[in-house]
Amino acid sequence: MPTAAVLTVSDSCFRGERTDLSGPATAELLRQHGFQVAPQEIVPDDQAKIEAALVRLSEQVQLVVTAGGTGIAERDVTPDATRAVCSRLVEGIPEKIRAAGLAQTPFAVLSRGVCGVRGRSLILNLPGSPKGAVQSLQAVIDILPHAVDLLAGKTGHE
Amino acid sequence: MPTAAVLTVSDSCFRGERTDLSGPATAELLRQHGFQVAPQEIVPDDQAKIEAALVRLSEQVQLVVTAGGTGIAERDVTPDATRAVCSRLVEGIPEKIRAAGLAQTPFAVLSRGVCGVRGRSLILNLPGSPKGAVQSLQAVIDILPHAVDLLAGKTGHE
Amino acid sequence: MPTAAVLTVSDSCFRGERTDLSGPATAELLRQHGFQVAPQEIVPDDQAKIEAALVRLSEQVQLVVTAGGTGIAERDVTPDATRAVCSRLVEGIPEKIRAAGLAQTPFAVLSRGVCGVRGRSLILNLPGSPKGAVQSLQAVIDILPHAVDLLAGKTGHE
Repeated sequence: MPTAAVLTVSDSCFRGERTDLSGPATAELLRQHGFQVAPQEIVPDDQAKIEAALVRLSEQVQLVVTAGGTGIAERDVTPDATRAVCSRLVEGIPEKIRAAGLAQTPFAVLSRGVCGVRGRSLILNLPGSPKGAVQSLQAVIDILPHAVDLLAGKTGHE
Repeated sequence: MPTAAVLTVSDSCFRGERTDLSGPATAELLRQHGFQVAPQEIVPDDQAKIEAALVRLSEQVQLVVTAGGTGIAERDVTPDATRAVCSRLVEGIPEKIRAAGLAQTPFAVLSRGVCGVRGRSLILNLPGSPKGAVQSLQAVIDILPHAVDLLAGKTGHE
Repeated sequence: MPTAAVLTVSDSCFRGERTDLSGPATAELLRQHGFQVAPQEIVPDDQAKIEAALVRLSEQVQLVVTAGGTGIAERDVTPDATRAVCSRLVEGIPEKIRAAGLAQTPFAVLSRGVCGVRGRSLILNLPGSPKGAVQSLQAVIDILPHAVDLLAGKTGHE
């Protein structure tokens, strides 16, 4: 059973001013697709804190999914944190997410979310709204179990 | 009213050997979508000169649109200049422009244009041909007013 | 007549444990589209060896096509080698390849292949399976003769 963690990135959720709906909805979708999901975590929109959480979680689970902080506003730094801790990016995954998102809203192009590899784990950025997070994850969830298998060394390479 | 500037990047237009049609056509489309557009400027295909113009214009307006220099020939350096002065890129915008361009010509894939953020301004690269510049801008113009609002701090964030 | 070389990247083909089918199939498709193709070469999945081959081949031909090593497994380093030796990337080409690949398999998003410019040559990464390599090349082959013309200075620029 592949393992996953969901990290909500949001100042207002971190301060308790808003209830995090995106994290639980994302975790539920992962469970429905066979992932064992670690307890929910929330960090503020702070690049150093996001990086620290990604580093720690990527040592514990095979798939780290973030929700929030993918836009173009100044406090949106989740993609920057993710790039900083990954050794390589998988560009096709955010491309697919944005292409699927365009069927819902033209603003999908403003999501800067990335997907990258750190060690043997995959890190995937989703937007912060519950609907955006779930729809984005649905666009790529079918390939995630195979992707984490590849990173675990079960290559069936070529 | 959001503010914009159009920078034509072209050796031949800069030397006066060719009339710049792309810049005025781009500016007109921006005006039709509610932007206040600064007087037209032209620079040669010189990376340092493009960078200097982008730095100056991004301090004056919310949206800087370039036309020209996005191809793969040696003198095409507008995307390189843009990357050099931006703190972050918005990959979804050129993806959308290229996907829309493919409906017109298979050569759309050769456009290396990027879109990035410098300070509180957005910089967007368009191809140099009048038709290519206008069609590329049309593919994303609906989201540009919202994008510059976000950069101005009107986030309505989450 | 434009010139091309095909470089197969595969540990098992290099050691002779598997017959390279992707390289010959790729070379044949290039010939059908008017390229003069250099004799086949094979390197292992070793970033330094791939880089050395790309540097040498890009001085000899206008188009260097690689097959293999584009996935996310640890030994997949062809895109990393390609980035390291290119001065600029042409993002629209892998975007088009992945979009075309999605019509065949959802796993197309896991290809990290890139396309870049080194000197006056174009380097293009294809996946390692014979079917994947051929279908990926077919998605962009119509624009490659024009692309290498542009790099040769036959710009017909703007």
